[in-house]
Amino acid sequence: MTGNPEINGERLLERLDRFAEIGATAGGGVNRQALTELDRKARLLLAELAEARGFGVFQDPAANLFIRRRGKDEKAPPLLIGSHLDSQPSGGRFDGALGTLSAFEVLESLEDAGVETQRPVEVVAWTNEEGCRFAPGCMGSSAFSAGEIPLAWSDMAATDGARFGDELKATIASLPQAAMRDLGFPAYAYLELHIEQGPSLEKEDIPIGIVTGIQGTRWLEVTVSGQTAHAGTTALNYRRDPLRAMIATLNGLYASIMPQDERARFTVGRIAVEPGAINAIPQTALCTIDIRHPDSSEIERLSAAVEQVFSDRAGAERCQVALRQTFDMPPANFPQKVLEVLGRAAVKGGLATTRMLSGAFHDALFVNRVAPAAMIFVPCRDGLSHNEAEYTAPRHVVSGARMLLLSTIEILETEV
Amino acid sequence: MTGNPEINGERLLERLDRFAEIGATAGGGVNRQALTELDRKARLLLAELAEARGFGVFQDPAANLFIRRRGKDEKAPPLLIGSHLDSQPSGGRFDGALGTLSAFEVLESLEDAGVETQRPVEVVAWTNEEGCRFAPGCMGSSAFSAGEIPLAWSDMAATDGARFGDELKATIASLPQAAMRDLGFPAYAYLELHIEQGPSLEKEDIPIGIVTGIQGTRWLEVTVSGQTAHAGTTALNYRRDPLRAMIATLNGLYASIMPQDERARFTVGRIAVEPGAINAIPQTALCTIDIRHPDSSEIERLSAAVEQVFSDRAGAERCQVALRQTFDMPPANFPQKVLEVLGRAAVKGGLATTRMLSGAFHDALFVNRVAPAAMIFVPCRDGLSHNEAEYTAPRHVVSGARMLLLSTIEILETEV
Repeated sequence: MTGNPEINGERLLERLDRFAEIGATAGGGVNRQALTELDRKARLLLAELAEARGFGVFQDPAANLFIRRRGKDEKAPPLLIGSHLDSQPSGGRFDGALGTLSAFEVLESLEDAGVETQRPVEVVAWTNEEGCRFAPGCMGSSAFSAGEIPLAWSDMAATDGARFGDELKATIASLPQAAMRDLGFPAYAYLELHIEQGPSLEKEDIPIGIVTGIQGTRWLEVTVSGQTAHAGTTALNYRRDPLRAMIATLNGLYASIMPQDERARFTVGRIAVEPGAINAIPQTALCTIDIRHPDSSEIERLSAAVEQVFSDRAGAERCQVALRQTFDMPPANFPQKVLEVLGRAAVKGGLATTRMLSGAFHDALFVNRVAPAAMIFVPCRDGLSHNEAEYTAPRHVVSGARMLLLSTIEILETEV
Repeated sequence: MTGNPEINGERLLERLDRFAEIGATAGGGVNRQALTELDRKARLLLAELAEARGFGVFQDPAANLFIRRRGKDEKAPPLLIGSHLDSQPSGGRFDGALGTLSAFEVLESLEDAGVETQRPVEVVAWTNEEGCRFAPGCMGSSAFSAGEIPLAWSDMAATDGARFGDELKATIASLPQAAMRDLGFPAYAYLELHIEQGPSLEKEDIPIGIVTGIQGTRWLEVTVSGQTAHAGTTALNYRRDPLRAMIATLNGLYASIMPQDERARFTVGRIAVEPGAINAIPQTALCTIDIRHPDSSEIERLSAAVEQVFSDRAGAERCQVALRQTFDMPPANFPQKVLEVLGRAAVKGGLATTRMLSGAFHDALFVNRVAPAAMIFVPCRDGLSHNEAEYTAPRHVVSGARMLLLSTIEILETEV
């Protein structure tokens, strides 16, 4: 590789500010939800910046946006680097935008240095990663990896009432300069830079996380049913209290799962009680459970254990249990070869790193199914994300982009 | 006392059926909420039945309805017997109506037998015992015992939007034949027959409960605050999970309070979690606690213990606790002399009885503050109440009414 590309930190930070204006909220964050006018505005801005540098602009039927810098071998599967541009309703300015704009900065740095690459390198902005306006999340990357858009998505209504099929069509139509390409194509590899959305890097004061994989996730919904009765008149032996059973069960699970395994995550996010009157012994108690682990056999074991203890405890209280799985995402492990590429890149760049798991979903989870992938994390203040106060310091932004550039160069020179 | 009064079981059962038609629900229950048209209809029917027997019909400014059978000494404070006529929205046909119509049957039995009593005997139907349409409950009896209607009630809006002051006025105006009397007056004593609303009498197969008092009740609302964070990314040592803290605390309280004291009641009726998303560690968790005990010092001790363990446990999870008392009703103990009257009446009637506490509030709780009072319970199937399937068998209805009659006679012949 000729040339000595370097990240232009100022340019990147200015780009972040510029995109943060699109959907800026009073609280200092961003509300730029998928497939809205604002999402289209951001896509347009990126396309214009691309055209100004002579990069190719493409989109696919899922409105994924691709910015292509040519390689010597135009037939070679491209290296993809990127993230997403859509945000949460009360989102921050870094979640997704950091990775996408850093990737674009990588392209510009290569261009500035006159670097010729064998392969093409493409920036990708995946459609609807957040999944808040239309569920589920990671729509663009999952459609890309599956090679198709599920039929069921078309008629789906947004939280604001709009129809997915119409919004998708309008979004594609809003960027006529983006040539249409097939949904799904061979890619050499995929690298994504993202804020950690957790507190570890900040607390350990390490600028770069090399993400080894994404935890598997399983969501359960548990309903325990007993018998409602009067809180005052009903003695203990006459009670069939589903909430009592549920609380005893959850207490045991809280006390065992995470304390015994630092890689496990067990969270109860919601409890609903019926009838929900202060003076009524509950009739039913419902809770949601979020289980995560990088090891799929552990997810199976934990789910089975949860089901067993609920069953035992409910039985002891003469209650019934109904348990259903509402979501299941197997773990994704990024290929060793790619992790080694990142490791070498960090050494070359003098960047301190730590290996870590991602607890959150990312587009990389899906792209990893069809191309070798990995992620790079940077610290975010207090681990805060999905929050207008989300913040990553400029030095961490620049380190992250440097790491992405170095990793891009390293992975183009390796066989992965 | 001359004459040999006897309950006319058929007449009473027919009356119960007749009143059950006023607000009858498809499920076989009654929706005859306080101060509605249906409540007025029931009052009117009772007034007409009274007039047909030559009894006096009175009401007070709280719309409490009184049916008076004269005594030899018209100046003597009357014996009051009765209950309420209003129901829950999905209520049963016995809750309140049993006591009120049995009391009216007692008057009619005395009249049929030509019994002359020294004192007047009055049937009372207290306004808004249920407290569902307008809160709180026991409005009529609490206003009677306080001698005044709280100013704040007037502008209170019902669950259906109606204004209390307007509905009260309309209810009073709907029965012009009921002469107005002062709110609160000296009463000799008060006896109330009611369904148990619990399962004990049925399970122990005893037809009559002599109620020694009403448990004290204290309601608490506890909010534990922590910090919301991502369920996937946040390791245990970074969590400040208020729900975890709450569940650990409640589990300990469930396991200790009621198992250690069969007179105590501890119930969690409601839990609410924010943000309440399956993949978010909670920010806040709120629960309601209903504590009951016949001993007021125990209520104090239990409340203090609840506050203490919540504080300790929340602190251990690095969360905050806010606890507030939303309701406090001290225990009521019915006077020994009245309990002895009931005991003698049962012996005379050949009725098996057991002494018991009431876990639910009743008008007798308030009347007991101004006149010696007591309650008589009869079994209800499965202990079910506040439910359209509420049911008391005819033989228990009749035993209850007999017990009320015998107790009426006994208390008139005693000095209490």
